[in-house]
Amino acid sequence: MSNVSSYGVAIIGCGTVGGATALLLTRDREILSRRLGLNLDLRHIVDLDFANARKLGLDEKLYRTSLQDALDDPKVGVVAELIGGTTIARSFIEKALNAGKNVVTANKALLAQHGNELYALARKNGVCMAFEASCAGGIPIIRALCDGLIANRIDAMYGIVNGTCNHILTAMIRHGQSYAAALAEAQQTGLAEADPTLDVTGVDSAHKLAILAALAFNQKVDFKLIPVQGIDKLDLRDVAYGRELGYVVKLLAIAQRQENGLSLRVRPAFISQEHPLAWVCGPFNAVSVYGHANGHTMYYGRGAGGLPTASAVAADLASVAMGNAKRQFDQLRIWPDLNEPARQLPIDEITSRYYIRILAVDRPGVFAYIATILGKMGISISSVLQREAPAQSTHVPVVITTAKASEGAIRKALDQVDALDVVTGKSVCLSIVDEHPEHL
Amino acid sequence: MSNVSSYGVAIIGCGTVGGATALLLTRDREILSRRLGLNLDLRHIVDLDFANARKLGLDEKLYRTSLQDALDDPKVGVVAELIGGTTIARSFIEKALNAGKNVVTANKALLAQHGNELYALARKNGVCMAFEASCAGGIPIIRALCDGLIANRIDAMYGIVNGTCNHILTAMIRHGQSYAAALAEAQQTGLAEADPTLDVTGVDSAHKLAILAALAFNQKVDFKLIPVQGIDKLDLRDVAYGRELGYVVKLLAIAQRQENGLSLRVRPAFISQEHPLAWVCGPFNAVSVYGHANGHTMYYGRGAGGLPTASAVAADLASVAMGNAKRQFDQLRIWPDLNEPARQLPIDEITSRYYIRILAVDRPGVFAYIATILGKMGISISSVLQREAPAQSTHVPVVITTAKASEGAIRKALDQVDALDVVTGKSVCLSIVDEHPEHL
Repeated sequence: MSNVSSYGVAIIGCGTVGGATALLLTRDREILSRRLGLNLDLRHIVDLDFANARKLGLDEKLYRTSLQDALDDPKVGVVAELIGGTTIARSFIEKALNAGKNVVTANKALLAQHGNELYALARKNGVCMAFEASCAGGIPIIRALCDGLIANRIDAMYGIVNGTCNHILTAMIRHGQSYAAALAEAQQTGLAEADPTLDVTGVDSAHKLAILAALAFNQKVDFKLIPVQGIDKLDLRDVAYGRELGYVVKLLAIAQRQENGLSLRVRPAFISQEHPLAWVCGPFNAVSVYGHANGHTMYYGRGAGGLPTASAVAADLASVAMGNAKRQFDQLRIWPDLNEPARQLPIDEITSRYYIRILAVDRPGVFAYIATILGKMGISISSVLQREAPAQSTHVPVVITTAKASEGAIRKALDQVDALDVVTGKSVCLSIVDEHPEHL
Repeated sequence: MSNVSSYGVAIIGCGTVGGATALLLTRDREILSRRLGLNLDLRHIVDLDFANARKLGLDEKLYRTSLQDALDDPKVGVVAELIGGTTIARSFIEKALNAGKNVVTANKALLAQHGNELYALARKNGVCMAFEASCAGGIPIIRALCDGLIANRIDAMYGIVNGTCNHILTAMIRHGQSYAAALAEAQQTGLAEADPTLDVTGVDSAHKLAILAALAFNQKVDFKLIPVQGIDKLDLRDVAYGRELGYVVKLLAIAQRQENGLSLRVRPAFISQEHPLAWVCGPFNAVSVYGHANGHTMYYGRGAGGLPTASAVAADLASVAMGNAKRQFDQLRIWPDLNEPARQLPIDEITSRYYIRILAVDRPGVFAYIATILGKMGISISSVLQREAPAQSTHVPVVITTAKASEGAIRKALDQVDALDVVTGKSVCLSIVDEHPEHL
């Protein structure tokens, strides 16, 4: 397409996502140009190591070891930061913004923790930031919140936003693998990192939750205040009991408006087998959003990987090049740097239904002790699953689901339950996330 | 929000969608203004009958019986056509475009048949059209195709885009209701129209397919050439056999790139129980899109109803007011009026796997006859399901799934099969839609 105008792009970081983005802008240039009516002209690939760039066959003439080369190029209108991390990436983004370049980034950790300062810096420099690729890979979920759902008050959002965890959980649910075995296999097949901590502890999901919730609820979200629990302590027995009760366990990033504030948390939680999120398997991600007008919409796709994430980066580059990203950044009032801090509920005030598993001595009256404690804390029991003790066992698992209660009340009650002589070990407690009601 | 600027809107047609849109712009004005940073100022509601408008409590000062009043108002920048139909709606849209107003519409029948003329007329007048609400109600699927997936070559798209049909199919699948019983119940509960023809025959799905495929594949689509089959002939026995084979029947709007052209059709078709579309139940819609970079993404939500559809209309109004809709309309090269006509494959050239049910006399050698005919037509058999004949029956159903074959070959083969002495009645043939392969 020679008869269309060009818009200059620099890519910083040529790893998995940076390399794939470069491929979309070079190898697949025709696809994008034909649809966009505009050439995204990749002019610089900035990195210190070009092994991946060479492997992908990217033109060596584009390789730069200095960011400044890209920033000094007046034809570059947008810089895509695809290094990751919160140190060098941050300083590179600041330099790009201060040089008057628009910035596209996939960096969820950075935006979750320092997004507001960066957005404000972009405004100060009269440029914009776009970050579709920071959440749920190739799924256009940020566009949904900022554009397709603009007329909605968002009331709740449930997301499966970490493919590694969802892959491990799928193996546990479908193949009965233990957490440790499923993790080991995921590491072997490259679906989990050698150090999977950020993923399996839920921190990566919390990064994405912080970004998405700020846009959905139009409030500043303090990432550090999000209660996070990962899948690394999840017991296969609870996966099985949950299934018996009609639930599937998923690592959910949960955001809900409560009367007294915003309830944000990352939890391995039970969701009904009837809910579309229950069917999201393997490395796929999905986000359910509940709007006051639109009701439930869900967005599903690959939450990671080079090309899917690069697809989101390229969409942002296109939007910047067209001027639409800037207009949204200037016009809309959804951006957290323009809004007040949310009242983020402390974990004790967050209400939910709960699944509790208690290992109790098989003796008359034990259930009455437990029920009495729950009753005194104002916690209603919804269902009980208790089987006869297996032969040669003196202990039985008692599985209880509760009506809505505050996590504080549940914790206090379980502390008392666990202190009972007839109870062995620490009780297990998992949230049950009910379908959010639609009022259309 | 008094310190933000305003953009004038007129709504034409105050039925279910028009009335709900008016509510979003008046009753819920604060929600939209706060997020958009702009007031969408509803200045005119044009209709001949204001019973619904009154019922909704819409301000009588806005009621107009003449379109011209809205067109003469220089503050009106956009007109939302929410009348439906292809006659008055068309002339009203033309008048609005010729008066220099941008147009937002939910009118799938009109766009499927006359979209290209209208888009061209908009360009001639220097304004734009936006039509998110025309397909799949509140799901931002057009935005996905035009924005989030802009860097993708779209290779396939499978949509459940008619909530009435999906509701009826869900009742057949889950409750074993016959088509007639499920339809009657849907009519009683308001989920099917008194005259459900457009829905159950698949024509409404074909309207949406024509619009979506044109945007996905960036070619002109001739609606009249889309082969359409509805759910009105669907037999409960095939639903059950399909399930035994691991499939769920859905009314699918199918678009696939084939080597020799574009394969477009609406069909009750089998899709694997593992595919996310298989889980879409009741009146919900969903569209699976396969991009060369992004792989599989799916968009799920309510495909009809006042507020969900109004949510999409309001998003378009917001985009028009911001100027982004116009920029996309001018800049992107995805709009069908700018592109060449697709080579739409005639039904005989469309290839698919098939499910076939033949009612045969229970006599030695019958299966050999059938297999011989299929073999001669080059059709490979993938699986066979044949049970012993029930007591007192001389006939057995033979259920066959095939490898990929052209629909022409299948039809010819079945004509010969049906002509066999040993075969009773007309064979049933349904497409099997396999998961589209991702090459990421």
